[in-house]
Amino acid sequence: MAQKTYDPVNYDIENAESNRWKKQFEMFEACGKKSNPDNISKITLKLQDIQDAHTRIKNDVVHTPVIETKYIGKDFCNVFLKCENFQHTGSFKARGSCNVLSSMSPFEKSKGCTVSGSRNFLYAISYYGFRQSVPINVIVPTNCPIADKQRYRENFAIVKVHGNDINEANLHALTYSSESGSTYIHGSDRLDLLAGYGTLGLELLTQMDTMDAILCPVGTGGLVASIVLAVKSLKPKCLIYGVECAAAPAMTKALQEKKPTMIQPNSTVADSLTNTIISNNAFNIIRGYIDRMITVEEGWISRAMINIMEREKMIVEGAAACPVAAIMAGKVPELRGKTVVCILTGGNINSSRVSRAIDRGMAAAGRLVKFSVTIPDVPGAMAKLLCRVTEQGAEIKSFVPERAWMRRDIFSVSVNMLLETSDFNHAKVLEKKLSKDYPHSHFIML
Amino acid sequence: MAQKTYDPVNYDIENAESNRWKKQFEMFEACGKKSNPDNISKITLKLQDIQDAHTRIKNDVVHTPVIETKYIGKDFCNVFLKCENFQHTGSFKARGSCNVLSSMSPFEKSKGCTVSGSRNFLYAISYYGFRQSVPINVIVPTNCPIADKQRYRENFAIVKVHGNDINEANLHALTYSSESGSTYIHGSDRLDLLAGYGTLGLELLTQMDTMDAILCPVGTGGLVASIVLAVKSLKPKCLIYGVECAAAPAMTKALQEKKPTMIQPNSTVADSLTNTIISNNAFNIIRGYIDRMITVEEGWISRAMINIMEREKMIVEGAAACPVAAIMAGKVPELRGKTVVCILTGGNINSSRVSRAIDRGMAAAGRLVKFSVTIPDVPGAMAKLLCRVTEQGAEIKSFVPERAWMRRDIFSVSVNMLLETSDFNHAKVLEKKLSKDYPHSHFIML
Repeated sequence: MAQKTYDPVNYDIENAESNRWKKQFEMFEACGKKSNPDNISKITLKLQDIQDAHTRIKNDVVHTPVIETKYIGKDFCNVFLKCENFQHTGSFKARGSCNVLSSMSPFEKSKGCTVSGSRNFLYAISYYGFRQSVPINVIVPTNCPIADKQRYRENFAIVKVHGNDINEANLHALTYSSESGSTYIHGSDRLDLLAGYGTLGLELLTQMDTMDAILCPVGTGGLVASIVLAVKSLKPKCLIYGVECAAAPAMTKALQEKKPTMIQPNSTVADSLTNTIISNNAFNIIRGYIDRMITVEEGWISRAMINIMEREKMIVEGAAACPVAAIMAGKVPELRGKTVVCILTGGNINSSRVSRAIDRGMAAAGRLVKFSVTIPDVPGAMAKLLCRVTEQGAEIKSFVPERAWMRRDIFSVSVNMLLETSDFNHAKVLEKKLSKDYPHSHFIML
Repeated sequence: MAQKTYDPVNYDIENAESNRWKKQFEMFEACGKKSNPDNISKITLKLQDIQDAHTRIKNDVVHTPVIETKYIGKDFCNVFLKCENFQHTGSFKARGSCNVLSSMSPFEKSKGCTVSGSRNFLYAISYYGFRQSVPINVIVPTNCPIADKQRYRENFAIVKVHGNDINEANLHALTYSSESGSTYIHGSDRLDLLAGYGTLGLELLTQMDTMDAILCPVGTGGLVASIVLAVKSLKPKCLIYGVECAAAPAMTKALQEKKPTMIQPNSTVADSLTNTIISNNAFNIIRGYIDRMITVEEGWISRAMINIMEREKMIVEGAAACPVAAIMAGKVPELRGKTVVCILTGGNINSSRVSRAIDRGMAAAGRLVKFSVTIPDVPGAMAKLLCRVTEQGAEIKSFVPERAWMRRDIFSVSVNMLLETSDFNHAKVLEKKLSKDYPHSHFIML
């Protein structure tokens, strides 16, 4: 067979993309079958499994607080936040990982585990691996950030870099586990993982006497499925809504198609919800029991993140902000006056991303605007411009004069500014005033 | 008398500064005497006052959670965080403000209040003013940020702008209150304010069975004084440490001088601890009872803030991070193995400041470094430089080529870069490798 070569001109991007996702799907199927024989069967979780998991892990996970919001949902409904961002390793994945490892036999534990998958799962499994003396081999692709590798190593996991993406890493993890005799743990869709997640639901029932609805982020669907099982069994009247980002509505698609169906996710700030397909077990549990699926747009997710930070004083990752985004975007009018619990699934966001999320959230809320203006290139003109802007109460975040790249005469200079305003109204007043003084200008609001 | 003119050459900055502080001190004295006749007397707070306040306000303030840290203090001591950043209006000032207003007679309430002072106090008093139907006049100086004025107005406070700084605003508040017949409320050193703060101590005693020490930020000293009174009365063996920022060690100075003494504070990230002098009542309660005063440097405060954000998933203001900074900086070796509660006093930090605090914290931890290098101004040289840097695992945050402002020949270009590294060790390895390839370069680490 002739060797395929990479042709940068005739490279079919769209096909390549769909091939990539197809490959991921096959890999997912392969990994799923290998690790979890009941994956494609109809065998689902029982409430008893979750209750057993609760007994097993309750002393090893954080009993996370439920905090009433002070601002979010104000004048609309009573919002409570279940803070899994305060869980060990910063996400609910701790519950599942702890349960999986705690259920292993001493012999299996001594042989160790091999894992690959999402950041939050890998944090959690290496944390509990160390605490339960289970050697953990973490397989990551070459594009894995340094900070992540460092966090796995902090818990003495053995980090092996293999493959160019998560699929290749996953495949290597399978091979490596059979070679080394260690247990391969798939990062979603294992029943013992789901049973661990479900303890969040049981815990919540003890914390909230009255709750009308739970809003839960949905990625592969494991968490929401286990909460549906735990809560609907014991408190059938409580509504449970799943919230997906519009960039990756895998569960919505699955429910439409009546089976897990592959999608092509787009890039999103809620990166841990980016999946090509939901898990089989989750789907089998959910269908018929989940009350609604909601999708939220990127802008609302950023705005929700900034509100959670500014008003509720907590750091959450994009995925965790989705339920709050659904409320803010007015997607749940039927919950007016109700008591609603939003699951803050995790808080693992890189610090430099926090800054970016703040900027995006501010732009989406009209608190950052772009202002481009052409002024005469004479002494004092720039100073005057800055005074005008400042007088209107806007703060100047950046100021870039541009002389080369413009069509007007050489006696003019174009200036691009990023301005901080208090909200859309303020931005609009500012636009009106400035466009009077500077007719050759324009404003960009998101 | 001849009019004084401003002489930019012979202007005595040092004198002007000390005059400014002297003026503030006199203002403070004037306001204190006016508002609170027992200010300079020896009458201090009683435990009973705090217990009464607790009964009065407990249903109107948040019973804030105590959260065990997952990372801070690891392998050294058990650290718990008392999360007043989750309090109504985002700080412990809610407790004092609620108590002051709740103690007023219906007649006084109907006449309203006039206030000026720190941001956190004004948030809190306008919040409870609205809820208890007390009209609140907030006097702010011209340099008050728009966002703050907006938050006061959200609670229907009447915001009046007067004076160029907080002293002039304070003075106007005094005049305005006597003209309008409304009650003037001084933002620190009132006994009913302190009694409200003390409820934090009582609440903490019900939440923590075992605690060996409490670390509390110190500004004018009101909070720490009321905690000393509440906790030392009921649990005398619990150590209580006050933590100040090195930029404004007013309490340390007062204890040395055996009386409240004026200092000249420097600018600090812990801006709400910036005071010229501590309050008399606080001093009278504290002396003889506080176990230690600690000061922490700016770099450690930023590092503490970033650790609380990244690892504990919470937003705090600079002041609130001081106790954690004291532990991280190794200032409390005697607490090894102990159970320590750090009071997170508040979380009111402007979002654009959060980004700045992240950058400072990262720089202080060796995770942001500056790299300046001179390279030949030929095609491909810049691309090669960026490849070299990226190969070493550093992320490029900014890249600014400079051609005009340099001493070397015109065939060279100087490049200033801001690089993200994983820690000091990584930064040092990077420096070593790059200085081999680029002899005309230098690294700056904080």
